[in-house]
Amino acid sequence: MKTIRIPYAEMRAEFTRILLKNNFSEERAEKCAEIFATNSLEGIYSHGVYRFSRFVDYIRKGFVMPDAEPEKHSGAGAIEQWNGNLGPGPLNAEFCTGQAMKLASDNGIGCVAIANTNHWMRGGTYGWQAARKGYVFIGWTNTERNMPAWGAKESRLGNNPLVFAVPFGTEAIVLDFAMTQFSYGKIETLKTEGKELPFAGGFNKNNELTNRPEEILETMRGLPIGYWKGAGLSLLLDILATILSAGLSTSELSKREKEHGVSQVFIAIDLKKLKNYPSIGSTVSAIIDDFKASSTITDGAQIRYPGERVITIRNENLKHGIPVERSTWEMIQQM
Amino acid sequence: MKTIRIPYAEMRAEFTRILLKNNFSEERAEKCAEIFATNSLEGIYSHGVYRFSRFVDYIRKGFVMPDAEPEKHSGAGAIEQWNGNLGPGPLNAEFCTGQAMKLASDNGIGCVAIANTNHWMRGGTYGWQAARKGYVFIGWTNTERNMPAWGAKESRLGNNPLVFAVPFGTEAIVLDFAMTQFSYGKIETLKTEGKELPFAGGFNKNNELTNRPEEILETMRGLPIGYWKGAGLSLLLDILATILSAGLSTSELSKREKEHGVSQVFIAIDLKKLKNYPSIGSTVSAIIDDFKASSTITDGAQIRYPGERVITIRNENLKHGIPVERSTWEMIQQM
Repeated sequence: MKTIRIPYAEMRAEFTRILLKNNFSEERAEKCAEIFATNSLEGIYSHGVYRFSRFVDYIRKGFVMPDAEPEKHSGAGAIEQWNGNLGPGPLNAEFCTGQAMKLASDNGIGCVAIANTNHWMRGGTYGWQAARKGYVFIGWTNTERNMPAWGAKESRLGNNPLVFAVPFGTEAIVLDFAMTQFSYGKIETLKTEGKELPFAGGFNKNNELTNRPEEILETMRGLPIGYWKGAGLSLLLDILATILSAGLSTSELSKREKEHGVSQVFIAIDLKKLKNYPSIGSTVSAIIDDFKASSTITDGAQIRYPGERVITIRNENLKHGIPVERSTWEMIQQM
Repeated sequence: MKTIRIPYAEMRAEFTRILLKNNFSEERAEKCAEIFATNSLEGIYSHGVYRFSRFVDYIRKGFVMPDAEPEKHSGAGAIEQWNGNLGPGPLNAEFCTGQAMKLASDNGIGCVAIANTNHWMRGGTYGWQAARKGYVFIGWTNTERNMPAWGAKESRLGNNPLVFAVPFGTEAIVLDFAMTQFSYGKIETLKTEGKELPFAGGFNKNNELTNRPEEILETMRGLPIGYWKGAGLSLLLDILATILSAGLSTSELSKREKEHGVSQVFIAIDLKKLKNYPSIGSTVSAIIDDFKASSTITDGAQIRYPGERVITIRNENLKHGIPVERSTWEMIQQM
């Protein structure tokens, strides 16, 4: 496999071109291409350049409606329910983030729940968007089944990614994590490389914890983070996404041919509304300074806060281009 | 060790008597005794009957002020900041839960952050209170340092318990979990019993993961759930509790002689405000039915949702009395 580097602007233009060919309006094609290109620029290639062709495939198959816009279903003060009408997940999620921020500007805190939306790709995208504008962000999505309840033989829970973000100077601290210890993408990569997982990451067909990627891919029973704790959190996130949005649960979603029509929650808090707003920046800096001052187990290693690597990777990829396998890029150019 | 069973009313009366002797007003003594007795009734003995004498000790030492009430620091619509004035953690937390519910009744969602408060004992208490009245509850606290950052040699993070709760019929589904895989209380119990942890639960002095309780108690470096994920979540919860409440961070708290003056966040959502409110009960039931229908690894085992065991234990302890070691109860009777 040969890796080449594509400038951000070129990747974004290529995505825009393809989306325009797939019934996106110009404005929506540009917005959506920006999200896919930024995810790649910031190192989340699995939900950027390597996911793009599947996203287009879902449009062609009618799971994702390119021109569908979210509609308000109900509202009560600082909380609103929207229907995503099966529109593109990234566009719906960006909209909901903006709407939660508007509600937060008016009420201090705002919550938008959306039903019938689609995969938001990288949840951290929306955390970065909100936090870089001065808002706290908490958001999550449900997914199809891919993780067992604690003690269960089969997967009935989703890995339901959860995002927490806070402003940090002009950047942000963004935690974006799924309820499985390792993503299936990571497990597949390790399988291809003939490597084992560093820790147990799922169950084999004998219901034993295993580090072997091929055994986990055989059962599709990923290990919840913290065993029973991550399984419990997945259940609660699914219940909340479902009831707050009046949408589909993990169980209902999983009856569909391919995952589409998921439920999501977006909560924003406007820090400018708080009396201590002027000192928040230095408070966060003091916490991070103390955190990073930990002595490390491995000599010369660094303690990193969630999202810290994104800034380094973004700068590197802006300078040198976004790394992508030549074959993937050639396929995209032919789309 | 001989275990005896004390009726709920008797335990509650005993706690009330002792709090009255320690400068609590009658109303506040009764409220606080109710929380300690209910935690015990519902099986969370570690933060009920077995924690009570330490709570009284903290009052006598001046870490907890029996008559201090929370004061509003600032407010903006659906979000408020309060100062706990070092009052009793359970009373402050119950107040904040009620205040978040009031804000949610007015605005759909409400958030109360409190600085300078004290250990709330069992976070699930407030989840149960809110959810049994029809509210979604999300809340967390920071703590003193007891968990390392991922890759770090020393503990600079708290285990920062996080609670999610939703109504379920007249009861609730309540997830109440700390960021360490096992509580130090559990680790101490296993050490006393000469047992190992079922999974790695912390680091030994050679920086290796270990199942041996005595090795973890030596380093006080508990393992974060999901390794780097739980460490990241702990950091974000601490930052949020600190900046939203204008209170002390884990790092600042840890400079004090004993943990006091923690920061907490309480978010409530009023489900009655949602258009789909009438169907929420059956939606939650359908999710739980599907969850519990999983086939189990161990024959005859049951898949349980978070909080399910509480109902069984509550009924059993109401019927037979709350189990407590005779020596502990005799000591309480002499307080």
